[in-house]
Amino acid sequence: MAARDDADRRAWAYLARAAEPPSAAVLALCDDLGPVDAADAIRSRSVPRGHEAALEVTGARADTDMSGDDLEIADRIGARLVTRADDEWPGWQLMALDQADTAFRGGEPIALWVRGPGRLDEMAGAGIALVGSRAASSYGEQVTSSLAGGLAAEGVTVTSGAAYGIDGAAHRAALACGAPTMAVMACGIDREYPAGHARLINEIAAHGLVVSEYPPGTTAAKHRFLTRNRLVAAMANAVIVIEAGRRSGAANTAAWARKLGRPLGAVPGPVTSATSVGCHQMIADGSAVLVFDAPSALALSAPDATLGTGGGRARSTDLLSADEKRVHDAIPGRGAVTIDEIAFSAGLDLAVVRSALARMDVSGHVQNVDGAWKLAR
Amino acid sequence: MAARDDADRRAWAYLARAAEPPSAAVLALCDDLGPVDAADAIRSRSVPRGHEAALEVTGARADTDMSGDDLEIADRIGARLVTRADDEWPGWQLMALDQADTAFRGGEPIALWVRGPGRLDEMAGAGIALVGSRAASSYGEQVTSSLAGGLAAEGVTVTSGAAYGIDGAAHRAALACGAPTMAVMACGIDREYPAGHARLINEIAAHGLVVSEYPPGTTAAKHRFLTRNRLVAAMANAVIVIEAGRRSGAANTAAWARKLGRPLGAVPGPVTSATSVGCHQMIADGSAVLVFDAPSALALSAPDATLGTGGGRARSTDLLSADEKRVHDAIPGRGAVTIDEIAFSAGLDLAVVRSALARMDVSGHVQNVDGAWKLAR
Repeated sequence: MAARDDADRRAWAYLARAAEPPSAAVLALCDDLGPVDAADAIRSRSVPRGHEAALEVTGARADTDMSGDDLEIADRIGARLVTRADDEWPGWQLMALDQADTAFRGGEPIALWVRGPGRLDEMAGAGIALVGSRAASSYGEQVTSSLAGGLAAEGVTVTSGAAYGIDGAAHRAALACGAPTMAVMACGIDREYPAGHARLINEIAAHGLVVSEYPPGTTAAKHRFLTRNRLVAAMANAVIVIEAGRRSGAANTAAWARKLGRPLGAVPGPVTSATSVGCHQMIADGSAVLVFDAPSALALSAPDATLGTGGGRARSTDLLSADEKRVHDAIPGRGAVTIDEIAFSAGLDLAVVRSALARMDVSGHVQNVDGAWKLAR
Repeated sequence: MAARDDADRRAWAYLARAAEPPSAAVLALCDDLGPVDAADAIRSRSVPRGHEAALEVTGARADTDMSGDDLEIADRIGARLVTRADDEWPGWQLMALDQADTAFRGGEPIALWVRGPGRLDEMAGAGIALVGSRAASSYGEQVTSSLAGGLAAEGVTVTSGAAYGIDGAAHRAALACGAPTMAVMACGIDREYPAGHARLINEIAAHGLVVSEYPPGTTAAKHRFLTRNRLVAAMANAVIVIEAGRRSGAANTAAWARKLGRPLGAVPGPVTSATSVGCHQMIADGSAVLVFDAPSALALSAPDATLGTGGGRARSTDLLSADEKRVHDAIPGRGAVTIDEIAFSAGLDLAVVRSALARMDVSGHVQNVDGAWKLAR
């Protein structure tokens, strides 16, 4: 299926609406028959043996073919339908959905409606999701802006859900930096939800991508937010929760991140703040890593990079005092020396050397071997 | 050495001043000779073969016997000298100092001067150390008060270093609750350092304990703070850093906690606050556990207690919505049921059940087995 023809496109648009996505059954049928025959099979209520599930999930909608309208609406608003047959299908990112133990409302989307100049696979591949409370505090919004700005400057796609609060602050900061940002919606890409973010969503579509697995016209519904959250997590290399109360949608996205094997970070805040409770809980129980700035967020998605990780810093001499540095420099790279030798080399009083060694022993820079001192490691 | 006589007491007082503590060499000599003969050996500069180190560390002070004065000063201010020969010696807590790889300024104190009505071993055994920046923020002081108050109410000894900032807030909160608190000093117990905390230190001595390994009259000195910090960590079941800048004394106490195998907690704060940087770093690099309230601090020192740990809470049904609880209750303790059966039992619409199950699947309350649902675990 290298060349996409109009019939395929129509068939995918039909299939994307025939079942409430995601639907492994519909995709399995496509895999066996191709999109055109799969669409015909569903329409005619006659599928090969073993594919009965595809009929069950399409029972209510099989008769309604709006594929022409859907594609026309998409065209009109500068959107397109992206399917597994397209080069920009983010197959690598979505693979996690099939591998994870996601019995209910997991699974790959049937297809994705996307609106904007960005290329879906590239943006998803470069994405970090910033999510959090709709009822964000001003602290939360401030941290989000700073984090999103820092990530955008590093070429990261800031992915979020276009909601009020943290989501909006994340998209806005990326846009302010002239960086692409991706909004994954729980409604059709022709809808502006929440209404107060209509202008923001249009700006995202103008400079980045607005994405949805729901056909044009689909209204946001509670279960669709939960289903959408899995896509936010899947189409990002890491998920960072900036503020979350004890129960929140962000906690759901975080749970999806864990299920899908995406590194999960959380930003701490005052322990007196209700909107940081969820973040602290995730960090405390070990399900999220503490993120405090853009480098620590980047390190999360690319753990090989030694950006801002405490482990690396501990042995660095950057934080040593002037005296400590002199003492450190007076110890040779190999072998051990006495305190007197160090004091002589460094030109420092014995007491100063002793005190510096004590601190650097505790900080792990030096170690004592039978009364003599050597550099640790 | 069950009965303590006056000669022993005098000898210990002499030994406690003969070397800058700690001194493994002096203690080793005491182990071999007993305190009276050890003191004589040092005074006469003649020790058994193998104990030459005890002479080296006492070279400058061996001639000065102030033991009578020291004991008299202690008596006068309601203090006493506690040694390994005493029942209240916190031997179990201090054992970590000998076992840890603490080449320099580690090791057990020679003896401890203590002032106050508390019993040293009991207070140390019930202690949690709250430490942090002298330049604390009002947020830091507020959190310290709340944490110390919560711990004091649970019978925990709030241990700290009587410094400005976090230390002072910790002691004050414990005192305000009428709970005992212990200050470990970097100067003699007859000194009030810092001067601005004179009244606080006297209150601690009146209701709890002021402790020091330094003889009466000893002035606070930089290296003594670092040495003192190891005692703060040793004489506590856990160390919690409430605020710490990038470099701070609290980071040194935290390093001692790690060296001594004491659970280390850190309280997060705004990522925009310079006084929380050290805490965030410790949590991010995994050396400290995030602590956000008294129960999470208690859980740190007694991990078997399931107080406030995220893991335990995740599966609790406390946080489920009314619909989710009905769905949860409709699933039997054993075996799996279909969505239809759940909807029937719960008296809820299929869509509501589906949505509740989706959320509870992600939150780990339920799991799907071949299309049917059962309670997780």
